[in-house]
Amino acid sequence: MTITITAFERSPDGGRGLARDTRVRWALEEVGQPYEVQLVSFRAMKEPAHLRLHPFGQIPTYDEDGLVLFETGAIVLHIAQHYAGLLPDDADARSRAVTWMFAALNTMEPPVLELANAKLLEGDKPWSQERLPLVEDRVRARLKPLSARLGRADWLDGEFSAGDLMMVSVLLRLKSSGLLDGYPNLAAYLARGEARPAYKRAFDAQLAVNTGKQPT
Amino acid sequence: MTITITAFERSPDGGRGLARDTRVRWALEEVGQPYEVQLVSFRAMKEPAHLRLHPFGQIPTYDEDGLVLFETGAIVLHIAQHYAGLLPDDADARSRAVTWMFAALNTMEPPVLELANAKLLEGDKPWSQERLPLVEDRVRARLKPLSARLGRADWLDGEFSAGDLMMVSVLLRLKSSGLLDGYPNLAAYLARGEARPAYKRAFDAQLAVNTGKQPT
Repeated sequence: MTITITAFERSPDGGRGLARDTRVRWALEEVGQPYEVQLVSFRAMKEPAHLRLHPFGQIPTYDEDGLVLFETGAIVLHIAQHYAGLLPDDADARSRAVTWMFAALNTMEPPVLELANAKLLEGDKPWSQERLPLVEDRVRARLKPLSARLGRADWLDGEFSAGDLMMVSVLLRLKSSGLLDGYPNLAAYLARGEARPAYKRAFDAQLAVNTGKQPT
Repeated sequence: MTITITAFERSPDGGRGLARDTRVRWALEEVGQPYEVQLVSFRAMKEPAHLRLHPFGQIPTYDEDGLVLFETGAIVLHIAQHYAGLLPDDADARSRAVTWMFAALNTMEPPVLELANAKLLEGDKPWSQERLPLVEDRVRARLKPLSARLGRADWLDGEFSAGDLMMVSVLLRLKSSGLLDGYPNLAAYLARGEARPAYKRAFDAQLAVNTGKQPT
């Protein structure tokens, strides 16, 4: 059985680990599955051969002996359901862990993406300075209840799960924004995620692609 | 076994079916599971009793004999995995259907939510008129490849699935925007979803809550 994922030939973030292949790499490292990586250029991502794998012309994709998946959440869920290490055994606890995956992707990430758009795509617009605080407030409106729910726990629901993997991955996008400073338990949660050996291997692997720096 | 969901006591959309309980109602109707509804006011949604069910203080939540889930995607996936009717039998086809659920929620819905924010939360801002076309273009950048992938098919991957349920639910938010006019196959796809008897039952049930109009 061979797993092949696609990743940016050169990530727009220069190897800070924010490209979504990092999430898939992390999941595969947590469950101990080896994988191969096929690098794709921005131009090739929009060509028919890649669009057959990913209709939206993005990365990552996942090929497991002919089963082709796209969409990071779906790939991580597939990995978590087929290999041990990312979901609890108890059926109810599994459903709750999956709930946090969706919460990360559909409740937490949309305002985080809106903030990224405000900075990257509209940073030069005349309204940028006045609008940015509004968008930041939308992010805070999600961070505050997340922080309240996490409380003093290490992870969102019992042991580390695919739900934490995804939530940490979304919070990583806020690392340089300063917004996490108001929520020390979320900053510590993020740091716990980053400290996992599987995350470090995933991070180093994507960094090596983007900088030529070999994993230590 | 009793399933209880929560929904708005009075939905901000006045019963147009855009509140997310409609998605859960639709899923339960597709699999033929009866359910009870507990209505929640805006004030009650932010109080501790509801926050225990839903950390972000929203609806819907799902209670199945003590298993409590929040997040629409997770609830619909749970229903699809436990009752027949929303996922194919073949394992690979199931993973692909789940992929479309995530694509709906994490690729298609974020720009759709950004457009909703631009209109609802920033419609009175001085930048609104100049900015709106930029946000609409971000939605089109997702509609175009979705339309290309759907082509002439009825549904996104074989038979109707939870992936279609979720994608149709997201596209419903664009119905009044005019953006779907440029993609006749997506408009027809949306209409096919709305024509399903299970959707109609779900829509009528939420409408009855919001208008007092009894289901026909």
